[in-house]
Amino acid sequence: MSRFISDKFSALTPYVPGEQPKDKSKYVKLNTNESPFPPSPLAQRYAAEAIEKTMLYSDPECYKLRSALAERYGVGEENVICGNGSDDLLNFAFSAFCDDEVPAVFADITYGFYKVFAQYNRVPYRIIPLKDDFTIDPADYYDAGGTVFIANPNAPTGIALTVCDIEGIIINNPDNIVVIDEAYVDFGAQSCVPLTKKYDNLIVVQTFSKSRSLAGARLGFAIADAALITDLNTMRNSTNPYNVNSVTQAAGVGSLSDRDYTEQNCQKIMKTRADTAKALAALGFKLTDSSANFIFAAHPSFPGEYLYKALREKGVLVRRFDVPRIKDHLRITVGTDGQMETLLNCLKLIIRGE
Amino acid sequence: MSRFISDKFSALTPYVPGEQPKDKSKYVKLNTNESPFPPSPLAQRYAAEAIEKTMLYSDPECYKLRSALAERYGVGEENVICGNGSDDLLNFAFSAFCDDEVPAVFADITYGFYKVFAQYNRVPYRIIPLKDDFTIDPADYYDAGGTVFIANPNAPTGIALTVCDIEGIIINNPDNIVVIDEAYVDFGAQSCVPLTKKYDNLIVVQTFSKSRSLAGARLGFAIADAALITDLNTMRNSTNPYNVNSVTQAAGVGSLSDRDYTEQNCQKIMKTRADTAKALAALGFKLTDSSANFIFAAHPSFPGEYLYKALREKGVLVRRFDVPRIKDHLRITVGTDGQMETLLNCLKLIIRGE
Repeated sequence: MSRFISDKFSALTPYVPGEQPKDKSKYVKLNTNESPFPPSPLAQRYAAEAIEKTMLYSDPECYKLRSALAERYGVGEENVICGNGSDDLLNFAFSAFCDDEVPAVFADITYGFYKVFAQYNRVPYRIIPLKDDFTIDPADYYDAGGTVFIANPNAPTGIALTVCDIEGIIINNPDNIVVIDEAYVDFGAQSCVPLTKKYDNLIVVQTFSKSRSLAGARLGFAIADAALITDLNTMRNSTNPYNVNSVTQAAGVGSLSDRDYTEQNCQKIMKTRADTAKALAALGFKLTDSSANFIFAAHPSFPGEYLYKALREKGVLVRRFDVPRIKDHLRITVGTDGQMETLLNCLKLIIRGE
Repeated sequence: MSRFISDKFSALTPYVPGEQPKDKSKYVKLNTNESPFPPSPLAQRYAAEAIEKTMLYSDPECYKLRSALAERYGVGEENVICGNGSDDLLNFAFSAFCDDEVPAVFADITYGFYKVFAQYNRVPYRIIPLKDDFTIDPADYYDAGGTVFIANPNAPTGIALTVCDIEGIIINNPDNIVVIDEAYVDFGAQSCVPLTKKYDNLIVVQTFSKSRSLAGARLGFAIADAALITDLNTMRNSTNPYNVNSVTQAAGVGSLSDRDYTEQNCQKIMKTRADTAKALAALGFKLTDSSANFIFAAHPSFPGEYLYKALREKGVLVRRFDVPRIKDHLRITVGTDGQMETLLNCLKLIIRGE
């Protein structure tokens, strides 16, 4: 830290992303919920074509991409905004819709960045604990007295609320915004996008990082009532109007044109998740009911830190959060069947003390 | 605007980028200072290779790219940060180094985004008018009482300060940060990067958008004392740690490996700038002494708005700012010789009333 940084950031603790080892080939990398499948061939082709033209600025309106998203989700183009990853848009939502009078409201166990966004934007936040079984009680969010942020499915638990539960939260917050972060929705949860047509206080955020295999291209989007999209665009145009580069815009259009590819990959991951969950349970692990591309599991006989380190030594990277309620849990990305076999074999050895 | 946006943004007027027409082929586009040359073949090849791997997150540390930049500019890797365009980094500087007690300080005629960054970050700002000839008096910035932002060469005037002038400003602000925005430095001005080794209060920001033909890929970087880079990273890691996508990181490394290509393009643009300036002067235009990839010119007999509109009708897009002191000026990007011939032919017709 320099002697110049503003005092306003004295309480700020930056987010720590999952480890990105320099030599990725050394590990079976199951720690950042990346897809084990490459981006769609169409996404790759469109992106490659866009590279030749990068001397020109990207379209700040992301027009083609927004049109493709609007068609895919049955909304208007004016209901869509694109971001440099969904974090970009979540940050805008904290900025636009929270202030000293309007705190951010979110769970104790959820995406760790929400607290950082609140600190960065210097807005108060109110934490609502998950129930003992790590589920959300929707009624806890009624009359929230602030802007609600819910990851659905939640991270790192993978547990999803139903659309009915979320509609209850929206109805019971007529004067608050409800932001539903659907980063993992394509792996078996229900999307709230259709509700954006019915409610002017709902923002649904999604990403191309997980189900569409474009984590490295950085592409997120939000769908909401047009007035809310206008507000998010005010944030975007006041910080970085060209936030989504032209190669990524092209990749996004290509990916949306190849819907079957995405859906097949999601089906594969859900099948692998079910198989892996069964095998982990057979090893004595307790698992949440995950609707995401990861598994959240703890073993009654082994501390999380021990398992994390033992797996790392055997070349398998998973994620562990050093947070009291979940310190013994591992968040394990669902990769290919082969990767999960390696994981299970390593865990068998570790459990047998080898 | 929705009924939900925070009152704190009531005074915010977003930045308006130069027009990006949907059908770019209809125009000779000289309005956003893009390069007329494609990105280096190496940049294109590296970027194309990176596309296949975009299911994995980009390196949040931008390690290879920062190493290449450190080598190119003779600084350490710890002295470099990369951004999603230089706007990303400028926004972080307004955020980290300005607050109620530390205003932003910048010229009346300069990059229009500085005022927006100040408003978005809700920090006060103090405006210092350029002299009548549009030059900066360095002494005006001594003991600035805030964080100084100077575009060098300045935009939209193209006029550059010398490194000596800037060193005087740095020396006379021992307790203030001085940010030098060198977006256009490669077209004939002197870079202050070497001064970053000598002063702990200097940040130099550059971009790959202009001289390196990568506007659409979105890539900026800043060089400074390591403690200042740490502060900028705190902002980055609190908003979007994966701010630079993997394809763009690869394109940046490729571009830096192809230094001759960039330098040849800059030489061509400087030659075309000189030829065009001479021809414009012959048509009666008054020009500033531009060290950028654009020309800033006014004609004593024709209002700027008239020239702007007449050029647009003839299919030539230039940029005009509706700001009192420069309302009769046009900012004209230096393109290829052929594009400038079209511009000059159109202006000849307009001046003759055709």
